[in-house]
Amino acid sequence: MLTYELKKSPGVPLYEALYRCIREDILSGALTPGEKLPSKRALAQNLEVSKITVETAYSQLLSEGYIRSEEKRGYFVEAVERRVRQLSPAAAKEEIPPQKLLLDLTANGTEHFPFSVWSRLQREVMLDYGEKLLAPLPNQGIPELRQAISQHLAAFRGMHVDPENILIGAGTDFLYNLLIQLLGRDKIYAVEEPGYGKIRKVYAAAGVTCLSAAMDEKGVRPDSLGQAHVLHCSPSHHFPSGLVTPVSRRMELLSWAKAGKWIIEDDYDSEFRFDAHPKPAMQSLDFEGRVIYMNTFSKSLAPSIRISYMVLPAALMEEFRRRLGFYSCTVPSFEQYTLARFLSRGHFEKHINRMRKFYRSRRNAVVSLLENCVFSERLSILELDAGLHFLLQIDTALTDRELTQRLEAKGIRVRALSDYYHDSQADTHCLVVNYSGLKEEALARALEELTDIM
Amino acid sequence: MLTYELKKSPGVPLYEALYRCIREDILSGALTPGEKLPSKRALAQNLEVSKITVETAYSQLLSEGYIRSEEKRGYFVEAVERRVRQLSPAAAKEEIPPQKLLLDLTANGTEHFPFSVWSRLQREVMLDYGEKLLAPLPNQGIPELRQAISQHLAAFRGMHVDPENILIGAGTDFLYNLLIQLLGRDKIYAVEEPGYGKIRKVYAAAGVTCLSAAMDEKGVRPDSLGQAHVLHCSPSHHFPSGLVTPVSRRMELLSWAKAGKWIIEDDYDSEFRFDAHPKPAMQSLDFEGRVIYMNTFSKSLAPSIRISYMVLPAALMEEFRRRLGFYSCTVPSFEQYTLARFLSRGHFEKHINRMRKFYRSRRNAVVSLLENCVFSERLSILELDAGLHFLLQIDTALTDRELTQRLEAKGIRVRALSDYYHDSQADTHCLVVNYSGLKEEALARALEELTDIM
Repeated sequence: MLTYELKKSPGVPLYEALYRCIREDILSGALTPGEKLPSKRALAQNLEVSKITVETAYSQLLSEGYIRSEEKRGYFVEAVERRVRQLSPAAAKEEIPPQKLLLDLTANGTEHFPFSVWSRLQREVMLDYGEKLLAPLPNQGIPELRQAISQHLAAFRGMHVDPENILIGAGTDFLYNLLIQLLGRDKIYAVEEPGYGKIRKVYAAAGVTCLSAAMDEKGVRPDSLGQAHVLHCSPSHHFPSGLVTPVSRRMELLSWAKAGKWIIEDDYDSEFRFDAHPKPAMQSLDFEGRVIYMNTFSKSLAPSIRISYMVLPAALMEEFRRRLGFYSCTVPSFEQYTLARFLSRGHFEKHINRMRKFYRSRRNAVVSLLENCVFSERLSILELDAGLHFLLQIDTALTDRELTQRLEAKGIRVRALSDYYHDSQADTHCLVVNYSGLKEEALARALEELTDIM
Repeated sequence: MLTYELKKSPGVPLYEALYRCIREDILSGALTPGEKLPSKRALAQNLEVSKITVETAYSQLLSEGYIRSEEKRGYFVEAVERRVRQLSPAAAKEEIPPQKLLLDLTANGTEHFPFSVWSRLQREVMLDYGEKLLAPLPNQGIPELRQAISQHLAAFRGMHVDPENILIGAGTDFLYNLLIQLLGRDKIYAVEEPGYGKIRKVYAAAGVTCLSAAMDEKGVRPDSLGQAHVLHCSPSHHFPSGLVTPVSRRMELLSWAKAGKWIIEDDYDSEFRFDAHPKPAMQSLDFEGRVIYMNTFSKSLAPSIRISYMVLPAALMEEFRRRLGFYSCTVPSFEQYTLARFLSRGHFEKHINRMRKFYRSRRNAVVSLLENCVFSERLSILELDAGLHFLLQIDTALTDRELTQRLEAKGIRVRALSDYYHDSQADTHCLVVNYSGLKEEALARALEELTDIM
């Protein structure tokens, strides 16, 4: 007689548990084709469950073809193709747990995300839209969200953007790849040196030629762009230097772009600058339709919210519709409606303001700890206004690699500025300190630990 | 003296409004380079605003390089490159409303989606996971969902898949592009002729060489694959023919793949076949690690749920991690957790069973209407078991184009089989009837309308 221990687990009815046990036995070969199953009554008694539980399980197995019913004779196991391959032994592999670090100066914080507001809006969206949430999505993203982003850009960035020229996508990686298809794989792309390494990786994976754009104290040097057709840059907030490109240089770059070139303005993280006003986007200085503006909510809200967008010049958007309009939108409608409300009701603005204040005070605490530590005279802080990180210059004879390895050995994970260079191998003696996820107590302890290696 | 009407608008402080007005004048040329700006006090008096408003606006213009300050002399307009073109007038374009059709035989239905169950699970996920939903996502997708998909594939498709080899992505378009990066842009890709046109579009947009794989009554002919390195096919449910490739032909194709080739098994829509058991996936017959299995929930649940996945052979997954592991996951964690529960609690299974029943009865009603219409002797139905559509062969002298245009003029949107051929232009006299979104009353009325063109 079949005997199973049917555990009650939330959400799984008993018949379902029984159905799964029998199915498993059929698939594994423990029950062989042609074998007769016990009568419903007998099995119910044996398992101490009601007859209806067994009936429902059998009828599910029947409807899925695992068993057949023969009149007056009972239920028999069907010849279902059985498992022939062993499960790979890696089946139960666990995600490697994050190393226990004293301090991780590479991780982003997600504290203070207005989770309860977000959840409330999610519930509202469910109630208000109902089954409308199931309808196919417009390829560019839902109009409500594009409208809300357009209003947000007007208020925060002084940008005047037609919602029709906004394209929503599941993350900037995805949008970079879309842009490569739109602008052309035969084009040469210039990326900032130093810069955010992932951008270069995306271009490499897409198989396009990528060159390094040299930077000076004003940002990308137009004379270093050589044969490039497309410049990918972050003029309002260069990572990792924190550099802000002044208007004069922006104008020079726009001049460069006039002759059929493109500028991808990656405005990633610009929300968290601490100066009075974010600098105007290049997009709003561009009257030739050569600038593609791009930003993401994954950074400013939470990494698990996969919503990025770009603003295309009208002619390029036309071309997108014509050539690539067959691509489906990658962001679920539910998230899009929720974000649309979050933006249009002012929650995003409030969140950003609160976070700026919070990060400013954290940054001040961090700076003050560094200023008062015993080896403070060997430290200097550069680009304090660089968003959620700053550059920490260290007077040391160690190479960058030695320095970061010794810090890692002390439980402190941090990257050197040289990590963000692609062509140069030179030591920078400079650390990129992301303080967004940092706890002050941990930093204080870490600084004590460091006296012997400094 | 500068005079502006500074309107109070929500979220835009006065100094910001003033800053924008002056910037606009500089960019438009109303203020010329070298021109002196009024003193802060004078401008404040003139505009009836506080001096600090003017100060803040000037300091922003200063920091952005629009003006310069000369000691003891005041503020002067900088030589900023100016606007030359007008903004495009297309600002208020509307979405084109869908044409009012009598019958749309190209649209998918989303009726009967278990919306209340889905919403309940969403609420549960919110409560149970809370802020955990904000954490960064593993690149492959959350373990819970990969586990649930693995169990689902075991139960429904007899597949034994290590969740570690599953990769979650926001739609199959996205995954196709990822695969091209993984398998190589230098490879030659073969796609089915006839076939689902979008697949060819994706390959074209990615810039890879694509050839047509010829089909006979068993599916793709291995001898037609020529120089191809990768075959993209749907052996369990070819679109639009509904053809199921028998095991013998699957084995031939697997033999072809052994020599370092790849098969992308696109199992799209296989859930809705009406035969008792879906045919086993090629993936489960592949012991050489040459088959990439791919499927989506956008079709079986709702188009607005953007979750697809693929199962990679272990070695290819290793390569993915090494070369492309930097890509962020494109599906929000919230949707992933919800779908994981929807699958593991058996709701998906129930939904599919219910839908199969529902569609079977709709299909029968549609067939019976066709069988009893006045021109029924000129119709034959092919591949009734082809999922949510069937092929309707028509005895007509009209070309396919004439036929579909005349139908469209009657308010009936339907595609001809020839639409799904890429190389051949021959008329098929055959319509692809997607009945998933069809209403029987509308079909009955449509058939009456058609007597004069048939």
